[in-house]
Amino acid sequence: MHLVGVKSMTVEQLKSYHSTRYDSICPGHPEIENEGVEVTTGPLGQGVGNAVGLAMATKHLAATYNKPGIEVVNNMTWCMIGDACLQEGVGLEAVSLAGHWKLNNLCIIYDNNSITCDGTADVANTEDINEKMKATGWNVIDVFDGHSNIGAIVQALMTARSSDKPTFINIRTVIGFGSLMAGNAKTHGAALGAEDVANIKKAFGLNPEEHLVIPPEVYDFFREVADHGEQLEADWNSTIKAYTETYPELAAEFKLRVEGKMLDEWTKYIPKKEDFPTGPTASRKSAGLVGNPLCENVKNFLIGTADLTPSCNVAYNKKVDFQSPELRTACNLNGDYTGRYIHYGIREHAMGAIANGLAAFNKGTFLPITSTFFMFYIYAAPAVRMGALQGLQQIHIATHDSIGTGEDGPTHQPIALPALYRAMPNLLYIRPCDSEEVAGAFISAINAKETPTIISLSRQNLTQYPQYSSRDGVARGAYVFIEEPEFDVTLIGVGSEMGFTVQTKELLEKEHGLKARVVSFPCQRLFEQQSKEYKQSVLKPKSGKPIVAIEAYAANGWERYADASISMRRFGKSLPSATTYEYFGFQPKIMAPKISALVEEVKREGIESLRGDFRDLNGYLGIGFEH
Amino acid sequence: MHLVGVKSMTVEQLKSYHSTRYDSICPGHPEIENEGVEVTTGPLGQGVGNAVGLAMATKHLAATYNKPGIEVVNNMTWCMIGDACLQEGVGLEAVSLAGHWKLNNLCIIYDNNSITCDGTADVANTEDINEKMKATGWNVIDVFDGHSNIGAIVQALMTARSSDKPTFINIRTVIGFGSLMAGNAKTHGAALGAEDVANIKKAFGLNPEEHLVIPPEVYDFFREVADHGEQLEADWNSTIKAYTETYPELAAEFKLRVEGKMLDEWTKYIPKKEDFPTGPTASRKSAGLVGNPLCENVKNFLIGTADLTPSCNVAYNKKVDFQSPELRTACNLNGDYTGRYIHYGIREHAMGAIANGLAAFNKGTFLPITSTFFMFYIYAAPAVRMGALQGLQQIHIATHDSIGTGEDGPTHQPIALPALYRAMPNLLYIRPCDSEEVAGAFISAINAKETPTIISLSRQNLTQYPQYSSRDGVARGAYVFIEEPEFDVTLIGVGSEMGFTVQTKELLEKEHGLKARVVSFPCQRLFEQQSKEYKQSVLKPKSGKPIVAIEAYAANGWERYADASISMRRFGKSLPSATTYEYFGFQPKIMAPKISALVEEVKREGIESLRGDFRDLNGYLGIGFEH
Repeated sequence: MHLVGVKSMTVEQLKSYHSTRYDSICPGHPEIENEGVEVTTGPLGQGVGNAVGLAMATKHLAATYNKPGIEVVNNMTWCMIGDACLQEGVGLEAVSLAGHWKLNNLCIIYDNNSITCDGTADVANTEDINEKMKATGWNVIDVFDGHSNIGAIVQALMTARSSDKPTFINIRTVIGFGSLMAGNAKTHGAALGAEDVANIKKAFGLNPEEHLVIPPEVYDFFREVADHGEQLEADWNSTIKAYTETYPELAAEFKLRVEGKMLDEWTKYIPKKEDFPTGPTASRKSAGLVGNPLCENVKNFLIGTADLTPSCNVAYNKKVDFQSPELRTACNLNGDYTGRYIHYGIREHAMGAIANGLAAFNKGTFLPITSTFFMFYIYAAPAVRMGALQGLQQIHIATHDSIGTGEDGPTHQPIALPALYRAMPNLLYIRPCDSEEVAGAFISAINAKETPTIISLSRQNLTQYPQYSSRDGVARGAYVFIEEPEFDVTLIGVGSEMGFTVQTKELLEKEHGLKARVVSFPCQRLFEQQSKEYKQSVLKPKSGKPIVAIEAYAANGWERYADASISMRRFGKSLPSATTYEYFGFQPKIMAPKISALVEEVKREGIESLRGDFRDLNGYLGIGFEH
Repeated sequence: MHLVGVKSMTVEQLKSYHSTRYDSICPGHPEIENEGVEVTTGPLGQGVGNAVGLAMATKHLAATYNKPGIEVVNNMTWCMIGDACLQEGVGLEAVSLAGHWKLNNLCIIYDNNSITCDGTADVANTEDINEKMKATGWNVIDVFDGHSNIGAIVQALMTARSSDKPTFINIRTVIGFGSLMAGNAKTHGAALGAEDVANIKKAFGLNPEEHLVIPPEVYDFFREVADHGEQLEADWNSTIKAYTETYPELAAEFKLRVEGKMLDEWTKYIPKKEDFPTGPTASRKSAGLVGNPLCENVKNFLIGTADLTPSCNVAYNKKVDFQSPELRTACNLNGDYTGRYIHYGIREHAMGAIANGLAAFNKGTFLPITSTFFMFYIYAAPAVRMGALQGLQQIHIATHDSIGTGEDGPTHQPIALPALYRAMPNLLYIRPCDSEEVAGAFISAINAKETPTIISLSRQNLTQYPQYSSRDGVARGAYVFIEEPEFDVTLIGVGSEMGFTVQTKELLEKEHGLKARVVSFPCQRLFEQQSKEYKQSVLKPKSGKPIVAIEAYAANGWERYADASISMRRFGKSLPSATTYEYFGFQPKIMAPKISALVEEVKREGIESLRGDFRDLNGYLGIGFEH
């Protein structure tokens, strides 16, 4: 960055690496916030997925906007990786997809120094990487001397540009080349010391007495690179000018994308409350009702699924698959690179990492959507986190949430995962209770320009509450669902457990003579952003009345808002949806007496008796067991 | 299970699949709790890792106990998988390791029906799986007709037994074979209906009018299988008898393993408090002091690392690597199958899944240890969860926790991850503050026979508190670290933030005239298991004095125990360890005034003023930003 003239990257900044300077732009790993950095790297293998996403973005834009003789998008994606990135599963998933999609605009430059932290890479890896990459659909080029044979590297890069497949350049290198520690694993992370740094300088013909001095001929060389870059930019501007004259409409659209803007007035596609069916509706179905017209019409959306098209309802009308056109005849597939529907296969982690690349490509050009069962966002968690850390907007459609997913059993029933996503900085985990709240979830997600959102949805049908539910309420994280002027208890209902909550309120009144308010609480993060006044108006913590959260997840996190919870204290169970809820005591007839007893206790002993004594009201009911 | 005579698996039980019966042992996916099930499956790809672990267990026991002419362990591990398992990264990581280790006692039977939920597998996968497996070190056998050519399948299984590598049998099948829906993706999950089930019965020469009837000749055939199994068991008992006569000591040890017992009195290897250095010590180093003698001497431990031997300090004295002896000459590696130190490479997820297989192999025979940076247990999270769900004891050594890991930056600094593991059922997340508490963490982990434990450790040096810290306190989750008879506030200190907590206590007294108690809180789950009386004696919530938790993670979860926290509300930052803490306001001189102000407010307005108003005392300090 310094050599090619990025202004912020001064010599002083270079010196700030690993220093105590708060304003360093030379952090331990590259960070997207800093000029010239495409994606934040560090966690191994993520970058492979990101690169696949960046290359897909280019492929898609080229297929959509290029015209014969006028290419407005034609860049390569170059990705430099080390030995570890292709040991990580996410890297392997991503290269498999790049080979499948024949992304010939992607080139991986593999720094094969055969050294990892534990010493020789052989200690854990003796596979034939070239054959593996070939089997996965890659063009493989060997460079056997990565130190002195610069010509071979240049030749390989040129060859990559004209490949019909993605290219893998396997360059043999020596870690710490020129140092006495050459080939030693310690050079990965430990400083070499002044003496050995001098050795390296000598090996490369530099003056070992000088420090952080860049010879003028190096600057001169890179000045040429910078000039060349400026020329390329000028050429591109000319291309755009010609394109604008010949294809004014496409050019206008392309310009919007370059500016990172939405291509259509998206709000008009969001259904109104009265448009939704009033009968029981699974919220994954509601998400289709809201999301599908958006995805069909607003071309920024790139919609993907980890092999759950029939379950996640993200396939929109007239969808075109993102595929290599060559596969049409070879595999009888539809689709081409203009397609915006992405079959990621059963590769949740790569889906997340690739979506980060798509979202990072000139931020705003695309708004990626991913989809799978909520439980399997635990596979994608490292990538979802990197999206949040980088401020990359995207929407994760997470269906089959809570124990209500039923028969697939405890392996498929998330209990602890919401705690991760609710705690994660810069992420919205939204769990809507009906179609209206699903609309609110999409609106909040699309308005969060630098934040990814997980919309957490039910497999099973849910009662609709048009008389109570509110998209504006979702935007505030929580809101009063059913008010009671004189109340004994506040019940917090969430997502697919709202139905049980409302029924419990009714039963409390009918059989226990107690009045319960109901609060809908789809998103803790959005609620935290509200004023103290608003928060207190929703929860009324000063009323002296207890607050009980009802959700079929671990209670962790609800202690901030409630005195007690009816929640999950063990893993789930393989039973049909309604029976699973019954098994774990979410029936109103089981919950109401427990809540009533709590109310009586508070009446007797005062609300302060609950201080420091958060109540998990859900015992094991004499059945089941705690793991 | 029914056909080979497993008594619990009655016809009634077979009918209970997808039913509402609480006592069904035919859940949606196989579950380890049920007789005859080796591991719980469901989440795709995990089983490949589990199978590699099971095969390693056998290899290791065989190398350790078999003698010329007497093989007490020589079983194969057979693993049946579908198309998806080798799309998942965890599956790919695991097969790479199996090939490296030349686990010729492992055979994967690949049900290649080329159909996934989205239709033809080609939609997302067109690689050459056979070539890929060969490049990864596997023997590949094709079976082109998996329906009628039973002989070819049998032949392949026989060939697998005599391979010098793991074997991959690629069997082409048709999903829903015999049904009108044959080859259709819908047969994966949807019921076929009575009419089409009749078609299948006809196709196989069964009476379509009969339901759940098993012909006598089928029972007869499987009775032979059962008899053969009984004969094999009798033979094995004879072998053990002969072995016991010739090698009485080894046989006694082997018998202990079969019983799932520890091979040595482990408690004697745990250092006493006075054995630890009193100077500043990184808790990852303390973990080496506690764990290394245990691992050296107690041979149940199988110790692994995801390429972080130099950082995680799990390499014990005289360690022998688990490696194929063939690699000694081929790659100049030490080690053989008797080795108990496992280099997993940079494959955290497979490490977790393989460790589950090791732990599931005749529960108790092994106690697997895994290790990597705590942040990268987010890669392993799906496997760690499966360990907890299956009740598989293991110890995950998670070093470089909290923002104190420093220069590697926000990508390496966990903020939200503890919330996941604290919420996860049947998992202990223990964060010790010094060497004595590290000893306590190991003791609790080893005593938790059906529960995995994460021990969360610092990269940086920590002040030792032998005058306050207590291994017995760790066993109770939290305990009084420094008591004050007359106090104004209780401070909760955790792990590497304990030093700041104790300093803040001192500063509160010196500069604000306030008395603070200090509670050490290494494990929320263990604390939850204590009596209400004990819990209240530690936190004194009824004292009317505020409680403040100090931890450099998201506050989520501390609301159960505290009124306020000094915690992290955004991702971290790349700075040296001490500077990172400074940047985020963990200096005592920044924290003490905030706590003092809270105490004053409570004195003024009463403790009830904090109800429903949990305080994140850590603002952004005018620097940094919230993502």
